[in-house]
Amino acid sequence: MAGRTVRAEQVSATRELILTAAERLFAERGVYAVSNRQVSEAAGQGNNAAVGYHFGTKADLVRAIARKHAGEIERIRGRLLAEIGDSDDIRDWVACLVRPVPEHLADLGSPTWYARFCAQVMTDPALHEIIVEESLSSASLPQVIEGLNRCLPDLPAEVSAERGIMARELILHISAERERALAENSPTPRATWHDAATGLIEAIVGLWLAPVTGRS
Amino acid sequence: MAGRTVRAEQVSATRELILTAAERLFAERGVYAVSNRQVSEAAGQGNNAAVGYHFGTKADLVRAIARKHAGEIERIRGRLLAEIGDSDDIRDWVACLVRPVPEHLADLGSPTWYARFCAQVMTDPALHEIIVEESLSSASLPQVIEGLNRCLPDLPAEVSAERGIMARELILHISAERERALAENSPTPRATWHDAATGLIEAIVGLWLAPVTGRS
Repeated sequence: MAGRTVRAEQVSATRELILTAAERLFAERGVYAVSNRQVSEAAGQGNNAAVGYHFGTKADLVRAIARKHAGEIERIRGRLLAEIGDSDDIRDWVACLVRPVPEHLADLGSPTWYARFCAQVMTDPALHEIIVEESLSSASLPQVIEGLNRCLPDLPAEVSAERGIMARELILHISAERERALAENSPTPRATWHDAATGLIEAIVGLWLAPVTGRS
Repeated sequence: MAGRTVRAEQVSATRELILTAAERLFAERGVYAVSNRQVSEAAGQGNNAAVGYHFGTKADLVRAIARKHAGEIERIRGRLLAEIGDSDDIRDWVACLVRPVPEHLADLGSPTWYARFCAQVMTDPALHEIIVEESLSSASLPQVIEGLNRCLPDLPAEVSAERGIMARELILHISAERERALAENSPTPRATWHDAATGLIEAIVGLWLAPVTGRS
């Protein structure tokens, strides 16, 4: 029994090393540019097949990294949802969309790689779907979308669709941009993740409520 | 003389093949993932050192691709600026910021790679600066920024800075996302680049005019 526990702990530690190394390499270089062999090496695994043994394909590895963060992100969103109840202020619902990831990054402490990891994965045509699927498996996100839809003005279908994509791209790339600036010690407009999220929330509310004239 | 002209034409054709192959590979795989050797091969060059011979480093190649498009983009922005004169409608100035690239992509005809190329380069810490420098060398962009600043409300410095970044990221990534969807025959919210640009302009005006409460 004791031997089996030690073995299980070793496996768990190895998996954690691989996930951390992969997240960092994917964030800094792009998912396409990094081989499973390079991840195994960066994780200090003598066996170059360690990633395959522990996770399977690159897609499985990407999914495992996303799942590693999903629990904390869900917990934060659940807390925010409990706080706003059935608010009819669109700002509250956009906050539930925006705040979980920046707050999670603030909790992790600098440096983080997760924001850049997500941005890299989302620009990869083959892996894009994994992040979308993982988001759809979130228990709290449908509640946020329902709340948003209740507060948003009536918009033509194509405008509604494109503003949803714009909100997603802004959250994704502004977070990645800020994480990159922090990693390079470059200046950032806002001092904290919390303030950066506040800026995103106000901008996204403005974007979603902007008049639609269709004028060109 | 005739021999020299033929030779010059061959060099010019080879450079064009290399630029086209590089833009496509960088757009689809990321700049980090693609070697000069792979670009030479994709351009049908028997000599694997062709990129180095014609362009120098990878950074020089990225700059040459950006310059290849810059002339047309400048021409379109110049025309738009002439049309709006000294307008005091923020929408006109945001249009001068947004429309040139989508209109250039529409002129090129599908498939294009330039929007994804720009998105890939902008997420590369080392190459990011090249695109920023090339933008700063634009003759028309300072005029757009001056016009925007005249029409924008007074914003706290950090909000002004972050909204500028948000506008840039939205233009960049929404264009890349649309180009990727077109390449994959996936549905897009808008039927044309012109309409997609109209959607971006209205959203960005909303974002820039959004109230700043600082409330969290």
